[in-house]
Amino acid sequence: MWKTSISKIEPNHIVTRGYRQEDLIGNAPFASVFFLLLKGRMPDTNEAKMIDALITSSVDHGVTPPSTHAARVVASAGVPLPSAVAAGMLAVGDVHGGAIEDGAHILQEWVRIMHEKGWNFKETAQRLLEQLKKEKKRMPGFGHRIHTEDPRTNRLCGLANDLGFSKDHTKLSIALRDEFSKKKPLPINVDGAIAAIISDMDFDWRLGKAFFLIGRVAGMIAHVYEEMSTQKAMRRMCVQETEYDGPWERQPE
Amino acid sequence: MWKTSISKIEPNHIVTRGYRQEDLIGNAPFASVFFLLLKGRMPDTNEAKMIDALITSSVDHGVTPPSTHAARVVASAGVPLPSAVAAGMLAVGDVHGGAIEDGAHILQEWVRIMHEKGWNFKETAQRLLEQLKKEKKRMPGFGHRIHTEDPRTNRLCGLANDLGFSKDHTKLSIALRDEFSKKKPLPINVDGAIAAIISDMDFDWRLGKAFFLIGRVAGMIAHVYEEMSTQKAMRRMCVQETEYDGPWERQPE
Amino acid sequence: MWKTSISKIEPNHIVTRGYRQEDLIGNAPFASVFFLLLKGRMPDTNEAKMIDALITSSVDHGVTPPSTHAARVVASAGVPLPSAVAAGMLAVGDVHGGAIEDGAHILQEWVRIMHEKGWNFKETAQRLLEQLKKEKKRMPGFGHRIHTEDPRTNRLCGLANDLGFSKDHTKLSIALRDEFSKKKPLPINVDGAIAAIISDMDFDWRLGKAFFLIGRVAGMIAHVYEEMSTQKAMRRMCVQETEYDGPWERQPE
Amino acid sequence: MWKTSISKIEPNHIVTRGYRQEDLIGNAPFASVFFLLLKGRMPDTNEAKMIDALITSSVDHGVTPPSTHAARVVASAGVPLPSAVAAGMLAVGDVHGGAIEDGAHILQEWVRIMHEKGWNFKETAQRLLEQLKKEKKRMPGFGHRIHTEDPRTNRLCGLANDLGFSKDHTKLSIALRDEFSKKKPLPINVDGAIAAIISDMDFDWRLGKAFFLIGRVAGMIAHVYEEMSTQKAMRRMCVQETEYDGPWERQPE
Repeated sequence: MWKTSISKIEPNHIVTRGYRQEDLIGNAPFASVFFLLLKGRMPDTNEAKMIDALITSSVDHGVTPPSTHAARVVASAGVPLPSAVAAGMLAVGDVHGGAIEDGAHILQEWVRIMHEKGWNFKETAQRLLEQLKKEKKRMPGFGHRIHTEDPRTNRLCGLANDLGFSKDHTKLSIALRDEFSKKKPLPINVDGAIAAIISDMDFDWRLGKAFFLIGRVAGMIAHVYEEMSTQKAMRRMCVQETEYDGPWERQPE
Repeated sequence: MWKTSISKIEPNHIVTRGYRQEDLIGNAPFASVFFLLLKGRMPDTNEAKMIDALITSSVDHGVTPPSTHAARVVASAGVPLPSAVAAGMLAVGDVHGGAIEDGAHILQEWVRIMHEKGWNFKETAQRLLEQLKKEKKRMPGFGHRIHTEDPRTNRLCGLANDLGFSKDHTKLSIALRDEFSKKKPLPINVDGAIAAIISDMDFDWRLGKAFFLIGRVAGMIAHVYEEMSTQKAMRRMCVQETEYDGPWERQPE
Repeated sequence: MWKTSISKIEPNHIVTRGYRQEDLIGNAPFASVFFLLLKGRMPDTNEAKMIDALITSSVDHGVTPPSTHAARVVASAGVPLPSAVAAGMLAVGDVHGGAIEDGAHILQEWVRIMHEKGWNFKETAQRLLEQLKKEKKRMPGFGHRIHTEDPRTNRLCGLANDLGFSKDHTKLSIALRDEFSKKKPLPINVDGAIAAIISDMDFDWRLGKAFFLIGRVAGMIAHVYEEMSTQKAMRRMCVQETEYDGPWERQPE
Repeated sequence: MWKTSISKIEPNHIVTRGYRQEDLIGNAPFASVFFLLLKGRMPDTNEAKMIDALITSSVDHGVTPPSTHAARVVASAGVPLPSAVAAGMLAVGDVHGGAIEDGAHILQEWVRIMHEKGWNFKETAQRLLEQLKKEKKRMPGFGHRIHTEDPRTNRLCGLANDLGFSKDHTKLSIALRDEFSKKKPLPINVDGAIAAIISDMDFDWRLGKAFFLIGRVAGMIAHVYEEMSTQKAMRRMCVQETEYDGPWERQPE
């Protein structure tokens, strides 16, 4: 017997977090139902706008991220669509999407410490960076391999500000950015923006990757479909160079 | 060099199907952006409502479907959230979500034949059922192991009717249901409803599982999080009974 | 209560297909235990040699096959080793390893028909090729995108011959090759060789991909480890070219 | 251009770690080829026996472990065999197989410290347990939810002793077990045995899960095949109990 507080399923009766499924369908936007599933309550108007913006911000970033790259490679082998999308999803890891989880974790911990100690944002940012330096770690959610100013970050942070979600975690992120800029400007990237905003919306940092995941599934489906419908199966996708420098014609004894 | 017509990525510039990412975020609902990704154009008002309803209808059906069941089992082993959700996604197969793909495939083929031959819906339904009988196959998208009347089907079909998406594929589904009812009522299930509606919205049947997939990811994330945050790792989830009837103490030679 | 005839697990007592686990460990080679798991009995000496050769033949084919390619891409994103290997495994599909399953399916069906009808191998091969032509299909397991003569095929078929596994399915494969060579030589590839030999060893064609799978897991583990231990995370692995030819600066309404 | 030192692939020429594939097939046992792939050299006679025993020890533990459980659930949904096995593989995580990786990591680190400091095994074991206690962690690889004395551990450790692989890491494990037994006996489990032996064979702890993975794939294939060939698709595999205690008939506004 498996327990859940998410849903109740009886003949001709499907209830999710207290709402009949047929009352949600077509009445509550998908992003709001996602919020409901995670929080157990419907979002208010501002929360509904913010959650939709968050998941939309992650939908696609072309073929080069490991997730989409892997999804297309697997699609080229003639597998069902879900297998290709699942393979791509497996690439959401420490260095791809993971900055949301790690960033939210650190922000949530240090906002708590900040309140405990009565520090201000600048002070907290400085101490956090010292601590990271001591542990030889970098602050997740800052810098991008392609963008010097990520257009998604600006849009998300602007929205968060307008809708009232620029609270302590966002403020700490900005204080961190200000500290970085004393040496060398390092922008908040899209992962960092999401990390701060979901923390200000009171989501558990352990859900960090979930917001990226659900958005990116949309983009991966489009890429898998493009691969399946426009490319030759088993097309040549990469070229190998061999680096082995031992003997080439060994014999097993 | 990999080609795609989905997106263009340049420093500080992310464009999806012709729209800057920052113009989509917070302006177009997530479901509409999903439509855009698949179709290459934004949905009109009715399409936007319908696509949102379609993906919302699939969000959750409790812990017993193979997708959610597998996701929770894998979550119980202490893995990252994406691994557990991906495992659940792999259960979207021939008999779980697959009726959308197979149903849409058959409906799209037979609507085409119907037009070619100049048959009416009743005639087409009868010939299709004869053909399936000959091949010893069942029409996908009819009947449900729990629901005799699926509340999601009624809601989706009502919406499709109101929004102008009850066209030939839906009509053929209804004609099939009418044929079944001559012997024994067999309702259109939620997969069957989605199959007919996406066909009437002119989606390729090969995308059938995608609508289920993206919805169910939302529910699986909630279940994986519930498992991770409320249950003991490696909890006892099933009980084994051994059925082997050979010798129990063989020796390898 | 889940039933299985594969194993019995009791406190301090683990029995697999009738053998105590501690009697298998170090006494029966891994490949023989794999045979035992599938067949419910230990292989004889020749079967043991053949099954080991079959799974060894699939261990690796460099970085370009979709399985290994995907595994390395996913590994580059900073995920646990099993996630990367699983992603690679998902690429074992219709056109990558699938020829073993499909080839064995066809060979097993047509050997049965051959016996029923009393045809000889040449006659059967000709009728099978006619049938495939009518269905616009190709015979799986013949030809290779790189090798004109696959060294693995020669070795496996030689072994099968020496060990007594060149029976009807292998003979039908050879008859097919002879038919092809009347027009244009088309060699039996490694998938085709495995398909014929497992059929001659009386394995169900539905297990076709399993022999490839277990071998390739070994190679993928080596590649994932090489990626993790020698390459930079998120290294640039492919280059995108955008092909979209619509307007680039659309506005959502 | 992707670099690898694992293999060289040219037309009609497949070379793995310096050996032609056709020279390995049927000459080197699969387990030895796995060793070759990881180490870049063939094992000697004792290493060959030990590596085979290690991977054989992990083949199966019935339907209840998350890996096999998930594989069967996914198989019940009508998916290709590799999808079901991959789903099971994703359950190899922190608390399922992960003790090999974590255990080997700790053993390798503390054997290094022991040599640096000139401590003996007992002293090292005591200091390690103190350190773990301070960090509120448990030593991985000790204790089992079912077995008080794991028959696989005894067999593996006996073999390791006979073949000369009971070196410092195994000795430290035994010292740890002796420390535990002063309070309450806590046996070395199969993960702990593998962790110690692969460390004594000089494998990187980051490969810890690999030995479990490759063995368990064999068992999962057998279980997936049993599910596909003997059970009804979508059979009822678990029962849901709903725990939600909020209102059941909410309305979205």
